[in-house]
Amino acid sequence: MFPLNAWYVACTPDEIEGKPLGRRICGLSMCLYRDGEGRAAAVEDFCPHRGAALSLGTVCEGKLVCGYHGLVMGRDGCTVSMPQQRVGGFPRIRSYPVLERYGFVWVWPGDPALATPDALPHFEWAESPDWAYGGGLYHVEADYRLMVDNLMDLTHETYVHASSIGQKEIDESPVTTRVVGQEVVTSRFMENVLAPPFWRAALRANGLPDDQPVDRWQICHFTLPSHVMIEVGVALAGNGGHQAPDAVKASSVVVDFITPETGTSHWYFWGMARRFKVDDPELTASIREGQGRIFAEDLAMLESQQRNLLDHPGRDLLKLNIDAGGVQARRMIERAIAAETAAASA
Amino acid sequence: MFPLNAWYVACTPDEIEGKPLGRRICGLSMCLYRDGEGRAAAVEDFCPHRGAALSLGTVCEGKLVCGYHGLVMGRDGCTVSMPQQRVGGFPRIRSYPVLERYGFVWVWPGDPALATPDALPHFEWAESPDWAYGGGLYHVEADYRLMVDNLMDLTHETYVHASSIGQKEIDESPVTTRVVGQEVVTSRFMENVLAPPFWRAALRANGLPDDQPVDRWQICHFTLPSHVMIEVGVALAGNGGHQAPDAVKASSVVVDFITPETGTSHWYFWGMARRFKVDDPELTASIREGQGRIFAEDLAMLESQQRNLLDHPGRDLLKLNIDAGGVQARRMIERAIAAETAAASA
Amino acid sequence: MFPLNAWYVACTPDEIEGKPLGRRICGLSMCLYRDGEGRAAAVEDFCPHRGAALSLGTVCEGKLVCGYHGLVMGRDGCTVSMPQQRVGGFPRIRSYPVLERYGFVWVWPGDPALATPDALPHFEWAESPDWAYGGGLYHVEADYRLMVDNLMDLTHETYVHASSIGQKEIDESPVTTRVVGQEVVTSRFMENVLAPPFWRAALRANGLPDDQPVDRWQICHFTLPSHVMIEVGVALAGNGGHQAPDAVKASSVVVDFITPETGTSHWYFWGMARRFKVDDPELTASIREGQGRIFAEDLAMLESQQRNLLDHPGRDLLKLNIDAGGVQARRMIERAIAAETAAASA
Repeated sequence: MFPLNAWYVACTPDEIEGKPLGRRICGLSMCLYRDGEGRAAAVEDFCPHRGAALSLGTVCEGKLVCGYHGLVMGRDGCTVSMPQQRVGGFPRIRSYPVLERYGFVWVWPGDPALATPDALPHFEWAESPDWAYGGGLYHVEADYRLMVDNLMDLTHETYVHASSIGQKEIDESPVTTRVVGQEVVTSRFMENVLAPPFWRAALRANGLPDDQPVDRWQICHFTLPSHVMIEVGVALAGNGGHQAPDAVKASSVVVDFITPETGTSHWYFWGMARRFKVDDPELTASIREGQGRIFAEDLAMLESQQRNLLDHPGRDLLKLNIDAGGVQARRMIERAIAAETAAASA
Repeated sequence: MFPLNAWYVACTPDEIEGKPLGRRICGLSMCLYRDGEGRAAAVEDFCPHRGAALSLGTVCEGKLVCGYHGLVMGRDGCTVSMPQQRVGGFPRIRSYPVLERYGFVWVWPGDPALATPDALPHFEWAESPDWAYGGGLYHVEADYRLMVDNLMDLTHETYVHASSIGQKEIDESPVTTRVVGQEVVTSRFMENVLAPPFWRAALRANGLPDDQPVDRWQICHFTLPSHVMIEVGVALAGNGGHQAPDAVKASSVVVDFITPETGTSHWYFWGMARRFKVDDPELTASIREGQGRIFAEDLAMLESQQRNLLDHPGRDLLKLNIDAGGVQARRMIERAIAAETAAASA
Repeated sequence: MFPLNAWYVACTPDEIEGKPLGRRICGLSMCLYRDGEGRAAAVEDFCPHRGAALSLGTVCEGKLVCGYHGLVMGRDGCTVSMPQQRVGGFPRIRSYPVLERYGFVWVWPGDPALATPDALPHFEWAESPDWAYGGGLYHVEADYRLMVDNLMDLTHETYVHASSIGQKEIDESPVTTRVVGQEVVTSRFMENVLAPPFWRAALRANGLPDDQPVDRWQICHFTLPSHVMIEVGVALAGNGGHQAPDAVKASSVVVDFITPETGTSHWYFWGMARRFKVDDPELTASIREGQGRIFAEDLAMLESQQRNLLDHPGRDLLKLNIDAGGVQARRMIERAIAAETAAASA
């Protein structure tokens, strides 16, 4: 259902500020917190003493303390201490490799021996001062792959987001899907069109006229386990579109980290990284607010899809050319799961 | 559980005004809407493209458009078009015969080949200018047959509706149940009694004294699949009761269309058709408001019954004389289901 | 899962004042009410006529009347009457032995032949004028034995109730657990400590200084099926602690009656009986309010435990010395269930 030997976004740093956080990831109930050395940590959300949720406890002097009877849990899943008790024989609980990077806390739900920082892709927008980032989190009652499908076929913008980023020309422009190494790439280019409201606002924010024809692009990049980075933008028409100089365009990367919760629900970390006016936090806040409103429009659709699919388990869906991005992404996911299964049985 | 080859009330016209409506009927998830010719239509609430609920879409220029990627669905379940796609090979989804009559949209969940308008009973109150109608809709978490039972045994008025239409004499008057052709009829007559509050108000509304003895009647008519029309009223005592001239009585038909949603829930379309002061819309509104309040009193009772029956699946209930109406109605339902099963296997 | 041949608290008298009460106890759906002689009664919450919940009915002239069609149910589960019906052949529903004592209504869910008032323990605080009592009721989504564990290991006060009754010395003081006849007793004594906020307020309420060292005690008594009485208090240090004269201490009994609802939920009747200022109803109200707030802190913890245990059904919990009270109590419960099973099959 989901690859386990992979880094997933578990939470944002503010979610573990001064207190633990309970979150189910890939079906596993985890307690995330920040330890005394400032390092994020993740252990099973199950106190070995009486089974209480450790996430209801506290972080005290950098240590995770169970809020029921004071057991102190180590980041490795071994009990550190408990008042008046010898804890040497206490059963170990699971701990999960954790990495903090790009402004997110990442967790590896699978075999810890395979967890290497190298397995995390590089995201330039997250590390370079040329970019500004803002984002948020939604909980969605739908299989995480339905969100991958959604993001790999932006045709839906015309319908789901008609009043903000949708426009009829999306529908009318062909898409191309390629598998490039470990990446699925779906692209669509629209030349000499009028920008929809969201992009007109972006042009204005970038000091550009908003009433002239533009070239618009959408280039979706899927990588395992379930990241979708989408290069989006508009350039004043005739300047090379996606390749146009920064001065005549407004461009961003839509950032989507999709973390399965259960087989039919997920955590959706969405955001936007932009390359213009990067020192303007008010613009970041206003884009974030607008994106949050737009991206919330997808939730009802995906949740209706999930209910329909549960209602009709055997039913095949269509795989049109516009669906090729999602189809290829799902194949990549299936191959990763099959490889894990094969390795486990070997 | 329910006959499928029958017309059920699916919705009222206002529910599909300008937008589609998603509703589960007899276990089938349907999308109801009004097409470009003004005709109501019902198709499966499942887009053949990616399984989204069509009811989250729009009706655009009289056509049902999926709100996810713009597939245009025809009223016959065949895809009409989709931007940039050839739709000839798209799988057909189910469509359901629909009929609009008597102020309701009716749907036939079973074999379309058997759906004929003739199968719909005639309701005089709905077509004659001598009658006025007002009603509403409740969702009830109970088997639809519990509502049929409820309406075919009005003894419950004494208890459930003690402050409005109940009175002790209901209890004390015998009921007669007959099967007349395709109809189950249960009747009760109370002579020379004082009218309860709801009927005193009706007498006043009709310009009659409300403090004199009346003859009261209740005649419940069940027809397949699950319609219950109840002739109710009071006449100043000694004028022939049910047969008394209009000038000395207040009489109505309680209209009950009961549409199964699942095996343990239903849509309850209730209303009242009256033969007095038919040109007084304020009276219609005030009766509707009062009836809505009274009929809401049944819901907790039926839902408690449903929970109790699920808790004790094997337990037999009593079938007293007062229950004969419900018992006969259930037999008629069972015979209809058995006939469908036999026809299907033949 | 729970002994059935035992008295459980079903409700408090105010809950059946003038109307019936529906409550599930040990998995059995009951209708509790007070009959015409003023005696509490409990019958199955299932009308033999059509399965409606009798608890939705009324008590009319001291008789339980079904709110659907007026069946009058007797306290023995035999139908007394029904309008226009002969009820001699109506099937009997279950009735449960009921006892009213100590300010509570008690019910015996098991074999009525074994129900004797003698099986109810004696609670001195409930009958003597030297005591005052106040309490409340919580519904908890957790196995009732998790509440027994909770109350037999007060170590948790340090963590769950840190701001009121918790203090570090609880953790640091050893506990002793003994089985004394039909009772499990766990005790802890803390000498020469500072009282935490709740107890400082109690000292003040009792006219004693709140800033001097005290001796504090906690003596938990478990008896079948699931009662936990906890002697708690503080005495000015050096006066004999638990044995000190009333004039230099503030002492109470924490009263816990724990009634299983289902296998994973229970009704928690909590309260406090005190031996000081017993004629001060304002003090009773203020203690009740404070205790209610403190005891509500346990609920999230127990419910998280329950979810975790359902998630990991095979997983063993630790049984430390501090858990001995709960462990012994559970053994007593298991032996009682085993004895019932053996008796039933003999």
